[in-house]
Amino acid sequence: MRLAELSEASQVSIATIKYYLREGLLAPGRRVNATQAEYDESHLRRLRLVRAMIQVGRIPVATVREVLRQVDDDSLGRSIRLGAALWALPTAEDPDPADPQVRGATAEVDRMLAEVGWEHAAKLGQLSPVYRELVGVVASLGRLGYPLDAAELAPYARLMEQTATHDLDRMEQQDGEVAQVEAAVAAAVLFEPVLRCLRRLAQEQEAIRRYGL
Amino acid sequence: MRLAELSEASQVSIATIKYYLREGLLAPGRRVNATQAEYDESHLRRLRLVRAMIQVGRIPVATVREVLRQVDDDSLGRSIRLGAALWALPTAEDPDPADPQVRGATAEVDRMLAEVGWEHAAKLGQLSPVYRELVGVVASLGRLGYPLDAAELAPYARLMEQTATHDLDRMEQQDGEVAQVEAAVAAAVLFEPVLRCLRRLAQEQEAIRRYGL
Repeated sequence: MRLAELSEASQVSIATIKYYLREGLLAPGRRVNATQAEYDESHLRRLRLVRAMIQVGRIPVATVREVLRQVDDDSLGRSIRLGAALWALPTAEDPDPADPQVRGATAEVDRMLAEVGWEHAAKLGQLSPVYRELVGVVASLGRLGYPLDAAELAPYARLMEQTATHDLDRMEQQDGEVAQVEAAVAAAVLFEPVLRCLRRLAQEQEAIRRYGL
Repeated sequence: MRLAELSEASQVSIATIKYYLREGLLAPGRRVNATQAEYDESHLRRLRLVRAMIQVGRIPVATVREVLRQVDDDSLGRSIRLGAALWALPTAEDPDPADPQVRGATAEVDRMLAEVGWEHAAKLGQLSPVYRELVGVVASLGRLGYPLDAAELAPYARLMEQTATHDLDRMEQQDGEVAQVEAAVAAAVLFEPVLRCLRRLAQEQEAIRRYGL
């Protein structure tokens, strides 16, 4: 398809598409003559992902470029590629390991990982920005007077394990590894508000079931 | 305890506590003489909640006041009181019912509610701001090229149902109805980042389990 058709199909303006092309967030189309290029389904898919990251995820352009570099790096094994793409997404600042609150939170997170048997996550440990973010979150909740210990984290971890199984099953429905890693990034960015709403709706349902209206 | 001790116990500065008192977010202590008042555990608990809403949830003071009004209104039944407190939390703008994307999303959300058997949530429907927010989120995902239908929403809804059961079980461990509703509000505001981190950590664990490192 031509640029105008790509814009039509994606509902992204031509000016924005040209900006993404200039910034290297979208691969150039196949030149058909001096002024025109041809785009395909992979451009449309990538364009949707870039827009989702920028408009919904509010992720800076430089970070989007870094995430996409990992998505496109086929020298990486699948877990690493997926991990690298997701790890490049913005996370909170790293917690200070000298802070006693952070040391306590680290111990609880480690005990939780052992309890639910996430041996791979335990082995990665501090290497993973997500692990470090979780420690930081648990430490700040403790500081705010809402401490969470391993026993309280574990049942939620088990539920999120089932959610992750679904996430990866959905991802595997995509054709090809690039499309799969793209789907995982989109899910990480876009799916948070869906889960947040579903959880609160479930709380309403369960509260009325227990206590009546 | 005196004001200085309340500040010490909560790690909230005296100036901030006085500001919360002026704004009516914290009930006045029991006067012991012309210049001093006595505070108790309920003040400490409320102070933690107010700080969590303002500092972590970035919720405006007027909204915090409205949430607390519902928390303290013992003329309400328990579900309504809980619901009213949670409904007063900020949500996204209501979706436009004339938008065809929104009509489609409404139909999918309704089919999902029927599929998972959430009859109370289905009966509340548009009355609940959470329902309206979910419809809005599903509509924007569709607009971005990531449509979600009832069949895709349902398994996530079932997992969030289990999460909500845990949420309410934890809430019921609190002594007294005010403390319970307070705990529910704190969980709604503070627990999002914990679940987000746990889900991404679970994705890492599951990806390495499936695809190796």
